[in-house]
This record gives sequence, structure tokens and C-alpha cells, in this order.
Amino acid sequence: MKLLEEKVLKEGIAVNENILKVDGFINHQIDPELMKMIGEDFAEHFKNQGITKIITIESSGIAPALMTAYTMNLPLLILKKSPSKVLNENMYQTIVTSYTKGSSYELTLASHLINAQDHVLIIDDFLANGEAATGAIRLIRKAHATVAGIGILIEKSFQPGRAKLEEQGFYVYSQVRVSKLGAGIIELTS
Amino acid sequence: MKLLEEKVLKEGIAVNENILKVDGFINHQIDPELMKMIGEDFAEHFKNQGITKIITIESSGIAPALMTAYTMNLPLLILKKSPSKVLNENMYQTIVTSYTKGSSYELTLASHLINAQDHVLIIDDFLANGEAATGAIRLIRKAHATVAGIGILIEKSFQPGRAKLEEQGFYVYSQVRVSKLGAGIIELTS
Repeated sequence: MKLLEEKVLKEGIAVNENILKVDGFINHQIDPELMKMIGEDFAEHFKNQGITKIITIESSGIAPALMTAYTMNLPLLILKKSPSKVLNENMYQTIVTSYTKGSSYELTLASHLINAQDHVLIIDDFLANGEAATGAIRLIRKAHATVAGIGILIEKSFQPGRAKLEEQGFYVYSQVRVSKLGAGIIELTS
Repeated sequence: MKLLEEKVLKEGIAVNENILKVDGFINHQIDPELMKMIGEDFAEHFKNQGITKIITIESSGIAPALMTAYTMNLPLLILKKSPSKVLNENMYQTIVTSYTKGSSYELTLASHLINAQDHVLIIDDFLANGEAATGAIRLIRKAHATVAGIGILIEKSFQPGRAKLEEQGFYVYSQVRVSKLGAGIIELTS
């Protein structure tokens, strides 16, 4: 997506070879008009596929996922992160370990909000190692629902997330693919 | 706001005299069209006041705040919660203690995203004891910015949040005011 590529190149801050800060327009300050266009791009890309729900993971995925859901006129489900495992029979639950952050969290989805007829589009801000998306997929499978695809704002294409998801047969669409990062260096793949 | 009052009465679940679950339409599953109307209601209520930015607190406030920001064509700032205090000179930071949850978290705001010329509207999903809103106000004051008001989706009017904010001179607008909760009981004040 041209507009987001330009934003990343102009306003993204490459801290080192792994960290790209996009606090100014995605994570901390949000430009609602840009989010609307991001949502419209996902809606166009995933149209006519029988998608019934949008799913995202709190909290940075909420804004783009909401605009996608709004454009597609579909409900949005926000997967909740909680630090500790509290078993709840009305919840689908799974543990996600973030290699980047060196921590684990539990991802939950209320079982009455999804069913086997649902065909789901997952939206998230970043794709790196793919742990969060894989966790979301585990929850969707527990409900016997199906995954239409994974829509990502910014993919770090030098990390294995895409390959892991594609190996499992999932379709990934990234609006921006970052092929290389370094202090002050951002390279994109078109 | 009539529509949200009807939703709360029809789909809200009063667990006990303190807990109102709105997972089906605000916190966990989101109806984007309802969120858009919530945003339009805030935009109408706070129009012509010279507001420069919308501020919310992750994560349940993000969806309504984004739709408010989108309708008002303003940037949205999301205050981040972090469990531990890491001092950062580029951040305004404050500790918020939640009496409801019995826990504390640190709220942060990057100092370069706000300045003394900003006039800010705070949007959040719930108002109960007012700790989160008061924490947000502390951060806004650290930046010498001013507060136009606090917009709330659901206020528990039997708890002291509104009084605490009004005592400090802040204007509070709640779309729904819940005056009483009990197992299966939801009473609203109009």
C-alpha cells in the first residue's frame, strides 16, 4: 500500500536491525484518516470471500481492524491478552510466547462470540515471528471456524512469520514489507 | 444517548452490584456501526470547542475514541499501560491504581506528541472511580495542555468518579448513566 509505505519511510524510526518505531502514526498517535484508508485497502483486498468477522489482538491492532470491520460492515472481535492463566469454560484460551519481548501471555476468545460457520479475517499491525497470528489461529480453530487470511500493516519480511503461516496453508497480505532495518536504515520490498 | 442506553438494557449483563459486562458490543465484540454513532454523538456534543486532539487509554477506549477522532478529523493519542515503571525522559508518566481491580499500572504519553497549545478531549469506555481519567489528566497537565472535557460511554453514577472529576473543575459527558446494578438488574438515570 503506497501511502503506508511512504509513511513508514518518512516517519518510521529504525532503532536497530530489529526495531521499527511507528509510534507517531500507528501505535501511540493515530491518524484516523490513514486508518480509514488502511481499512479500505484490506476491505478491497479481501472482498467477495464470504468473510463473516474481523479478528484482531489488543491493543495496536484495534484501530486498523475497526476501520476494516467498519468498511466491510462486519463485527470485530478483539482477542484479549491476560498475564495469567485463569481457566474459564466459556473461553477459548491459548498461551502465546513472544520471542521478541521474551514474555508470555494468554489470549482469550469468548466461545459464544464465534462458531463453526464463521470465516474470519485476522488483522494485526506487525508480523515478525508470527506468534500472535498463530495464537489467534489456534483460538479460531478451537471454534471450528475458518481463516480467510491474515492482513498485516507492516511485515518484517526478514523474519520467519510469513513462512510459518504460509507453511500451514494460510494466506498473508501485508500492506508494507520491510526487508531490512538498521540504525537509520529502512528498506522495503515491493 | 438513546441507542447505547437500549443496547445496555438489552445486551448488557449485570453480574452483581458492581460489574456490568458489555463484552458483546463494546469490550470484546464490537459493532463498528454502533461505534461510529457513538463517535458522532461525542463529536456533536463537543463541537466548536477548539479541541485539537482526542486522548484515550488502551485498550477498550480505542474503538470509540478512534470513531470520535475520525468524525472530528483530529489525531488520536492512545495512552499506554505498562505494568512496571521504566523511567524514560521522553515520556510523561504517572501511576494509576485501580480500586476495582486492586492493581496498579503506569500510564505513559510520549512528550513530543502533545504540547501546551493542545486542548484535549478524553474518551473512555467506563467511568467508575475515575482513576484512569484522573491519570490521563495528570499526563495532560504535565504537558501544560488543557482538558476540554471527558466523554464516557457508560458511567456508573453510583460510584464517585464524576464527583471527583467535577470537583476538580472538569466537565463530564456520559452517554449512558447506570444508577443501579444487581444480579440481573440494570437501572439507568436519564
